[in-house]
Amino acid sequence: MHTRDFRWIVDQYDIIFLDAFGVIKNYKGLVPGIENTFAYLESQNKEYYIVTNDASRSPFQLAESYHKKGLTAITQDRIISSGMLAKEYLDLKVPEGIVAYLGTPDSAHYIESSGLHTLPVSELDDVNINEVSALVFLDDEGFDWFNDLNKCVNLLRKRNIPAIVANTDRAYPLNLHDVSIAIGGLANMVESIVGKKFIRFGKPDSQMFMFAYDLIRDRRSIDKKDIVMVGDTLQTDIMGGNKFGLDTVLVLSGNTQAIDAETRINATGIVPTYISESAVIE
Amino acid sequence: MHTRDFRWIVDQYDIIFLDAFGVIKNYKGLVPGIENTFAYLESQNKEYYIVTNDASRSPFQLAESYHKKGLTAITQDRIISSGMLAKEYLDLKVPEGIVAYLGTPDSAHYIESSGLHTLPVSELDDVNINEVSALVFLDDEGFDWFNDLNKCVNLLRKRNIPAIVANTDRAYPLNLHDVSIAIGGLANMVESIVGKKFIRFGKPDSQMFMFAYDLIRDRRSIDKKDIVMVGDTLQTDIMGGNKFGLDTVLVLSGNTQAIDAETRINATGIVPTYISESAVIE
Amino acid sequence: MHTRDFRWIVDQYDIIFLDAFGVIKNYKGLVPGIENTFAYLESQNKEYYIVTNDASRSPFQLAESYHKKGLTAITQDRIISSGMLAKEYLDLKVPEGIVAYLGTPDSAHYIESSGLHTLPVSELDDVNINEVSALVFLDDEGFDWFNDLNKCVNLLRKRNIPAIVANTDRAYPLNLHDVSIAIGGLANMVESIVGKKFIRFGKPDSQMFMFAYDLIRDRRSIDKKDIVMVGDTLQTDIMGGNKFGLDTVLVLSGNTQAIDAETRINATGIVPTYISESAVIE
Amino acid sequence: MHTRDFRWIVDQYDIIFLDAFGVIKNYKGLVPGIENTFAYLESQNKEYYIVTNDASRSPFQLAESYHKKGLTAITQDRIISSGMLAKEYLDLKVPEGIVAYLGTPDSAHYIESSGLHTLPVSELDDVNINEVSALVFLDDEGFDWFNDLNKCVNLLRKRNIPAIVANTDRAYPLNLHDVSIAIGGLANMVESIVGKKFIRFGKPDSQMFMFAYDLIRDRRSIDKKDIVMVGDTLQTDIMGGNKFGLDTVLVLSGNTQAIDAETRINATGIVPTYISESAVIE
Repeated sequence: MHTRDFRWIVDQYDIIFLDAFGVIKNYKGLVPGIENTFAYLESQNKEYYIVTNDASRSPFQLAESYHKKGLTAITQDRIISSGMLAKEYLDLKVPEGIVAYLGTPDSAHYIESSGLHTLPVSELDDVNINEVSALVFLDDEGFDWFNDLNKCVNLLRKRNIPAIVANTDRAYPLNLHDVSIAIGGLANMVESIVGKKFIRFGKPDSQMFMFAYDLIRDRRSIDKKDIVMVGDTLQTDIMGGNKFGLDTVLVLSGNTQAIDAETRINATGIVPTYISESAVIE
Repeated sequence: MHTRDFRWIVDQYDIIFLDAFGVIKNYKGLVPGIENTFAYLESQNKEYYIVTNDASRSPFQLAESYHKKGLTAITQDRIISSGMLAKEYLDLKVPEGIVAYLGTPDSAHYIESSGLHTLPVSELDDVNINEVSALVFLDDEGFDWFNDLNKCVNLLRKRNIPAIVANTDRAYPLNLHDVSIAIGGLANMVESIVGKKFIRFGKPDSQMFMFAYDLIRDRRSIDKKDIVMVGDTLQTDIMGGNKFGLDTVLVLSGNTQAIDAETRINATGIVPTYISESAVIE
Repeated sequence: MHTRDFRWIVDQYDIIFLDAFGVIKNYKGLVPGIENTFAYLESQNKEYYIVTNDASRSPFQLAESYHKKGLTAITQDRIISSGMLAKEYLDLKVPEGIVAYLGTPDSAHYIESSGLHTLPVSELDDVNINEVSALVFLDDEGFDWFNDLNKCVNLLRKRNIPAIVANTDRAYPLNLHDVSIAIGGLANMVESIVGKKFIRFGKPDSQMFMFAYDLIRDRRSIDKKDIVMVGDTLQTDIMGGNKFGLDTVLVLSGNTQAIDAETRINATGIVPTYISESAVIE
Repeated sequence: MHTRDFRWIVDQYDIIFLDAFGVIKNYKGLVPGIENTFAYLESQNKEYYIVTNDASRSPFQLAESYHKKGLTAITQDRIISSGMLAKEYLDLKVPEGIVAYLGTPDSAHYIESSGLHTLPVSELDDVNINEVSALVFLDDEGFDWFNDLNKCVNLLRKRNIPAIVANTDRAYPLNLHDVSIAIGGLANMVESIVGKKFIRFGKPDSQMFMFAYDLIRDRRSIDKKDIVMVGDTLQTDIMGGNKFGLDTVLVLSGNTQAIDAETRINATGIVPTYISESAVIE
């Protein structure tokens, strides 16, 4: 584990995977100067992908949100989200029936783009409950927690259907001082109450990295040694990257701050290949 | 483990501890015929106590609710609730400041009866947050889940105060088909997100049984062999009674049904001394 | 939470509960100067008890071990061990049959002092397995881990009997640099493999404190406000003392060192009433 | 979920993934008649792979063990073991230093085949401990549990190195009546004591399935819909296969018996596409 300048690190690899929140953006908007990083990556012919635990929107909408902030380098084909894995699962494994969901209409719209029928949990009733073939946890917004979390518990007690968690994060930063409970935290509660095993997508699970890796391999031959994963969170970005066999960079611009990086690395045993102050290249 | 007539079981003991929900009452009201049981207990000079995971109301209000249903035998001095333990904890350990709470005004009213100042989590703000000296989870009703659970998470991230769970149940039956997420389930979620250790009161924890045991011992000398605990739930009533050294009776009128009692006993390894169809004595 | 001189703290209370390891003794022997503390307690007419997670020996043998080290103030009636609770449980709940155990002959000798028949797990066979009425985890020494842990797993798969963990500690210090896996750690592994619920005795569980409290109350009237619990471990001594409603003192002579006391208190949310360098009174 | 004849199921797919223990073999040897299944697969030009949680031997040795039992169809290139993933991880991420291991010499021999230096945990000392760059849990045999599990705990407290679990199974069947604690169970205990995050390979983790999938894709284009995963264990084979997006078959010749298949499927919420009595085609 060495502390290195981000440019120096990037120069060692062909392909860069980057987490979104805490690396490229934060609750205020883009991380200041991050545009330079992407300009440098382009100038050096580096390939880069955003690997993000997010099921609130489609890759197209996620890319659009970067463009609105002035970062045009991130196009939808550069984005790998946990929502994409949930969608692939549903397409492969749940061909019929209705997919009940917790989340915003935007999150559901993406899931249903390949022909699935979706239904917000709030609209579940005694009749349509029998046609539901899966429950998917997409986003912490867009529904009434009291009514709809209780409806989820009872849906899963009555129907033996798969429950899919499309974003495993338990909380996310809202501003400098506050966090918000994320859909992964709500899903954990429902799972422990109903006592069934949910299917989870998102870092640190290898499937996220595999999805990105496969996208590249479809076009050209690569080696895991040519890829580095950049993230601000030990338990997701670094743990997942390490396990998939990638080199990893912990940046100190998000969840893990300079003051306690070493303490946390020692406490968790999750060791990045490098530490860097941020992903900004000046 | 023997299946026995409830009257026969009761005859072997001097003191009877009974769980409330699933034993004396259910979502429809009193368990039909349960009045006869209390008439029999009185006629035989048996001492009895209701030992219940409930922090939604005071013992006085709980007793009143039985009286309204026509069961006058249960007076407030016969009720041991997990809310009483939470109140004792707060009286002993949190003498100053404000106790923030999740629950109904009724649940808070009881907590503050000994002079504590309480504040619903919804009314927390940047100023009064600094005077909060404890957070207590009382009831799943009486607050907005989205706003107030998020406020709890941030309160506990900012202030190093004890968090008390006054009812450890994760769910409770709402009607024949549905359950409701209980305050214990919500508290587990908040605890796992903030990563701190909460203080829990309620069966199976021994403190519930000790509280009842002490009430009796203050008046007369007793032996644990003279007490039997009656309940419908293996993980709380039977586990807790067993661990405290009491004989236990699993009744099949609530959470555990005749059809799967044996399977669950084998799966959990929680073995009651007796099984009885219900606590009704005809 | 205030840092205070230990003498000042002791002066505020009538009754002092002390953890053993890390407070009175460590891997080298007695904590230097601890004799003065007991001389002071005697001179001030303070009542004191050792409240310890230990099931390796009887209170008599534990007291004897202090006497051999030159500390005669700790007599057997001053010792409350988790082994005493396990023994009480077995006396009350397992009147017949054989109690299989993991531990040394010394640990079993104490358990069988009230007439129970014990059998080391190593001697379990196809015949006597049917007479076994409980399994008790006493000590990490005195048996072959490979053979006997596997025998425990299979015993609990074949016989639906209670499994009792007489010491919940997962590890203990062996010397300045090394720890040893304790019987509580081994029991957790067996429990997770067989999927049954074990019965645990030891701090932080309230039953330890209640046992000590009852001993005193049998002789005189006391109030929880008159008692302080002194320990070196947040998760057992301080958590348990707090929950039972006692004031608590974290001493920095054992598991929790001065350098990270504050970090750990913030991370766990387990807050002692006082912090003191050690329990030594000079 | 439909109960189907195994031949009918196989006819729907091009590629068959099979678990080993409980499907092809059991504690007595080969499942009687399983040779016919492989003869049928060959005759129908089906591609098949053994996907097994096993790190005790190399694929070559595993294949050899089938040949000795008379099953020549399973060659080493048909075997995907969790040990192979652990080896890939070590090759990619731990290029230098010594890999300490728990297991037999056979298990270590495979790990070191690509040039790594290995050391049994029993031979760790105060000098070579500083050169250790990873700890790997390979097999439950080949070491002294008491000495070497304690050495593992202390190694991980002193050195911040990755700990790799090359087989996540917690137990395995020894004969008709008994199970044995597996290396995954031992690793869980060490992890909970040291409090660090271990890296695990083996079903239900997607990486096992991805490894097999990649082997095939290197030679020809395939679709996940063309593959079916066959296994006897809901939590590993079926959960993992489902999550990877494959159709799945639960066979009743191993861990899950006909009598409780439905109960377990309902309890866990892990639903196979098909149930079949066994993988034998007559």
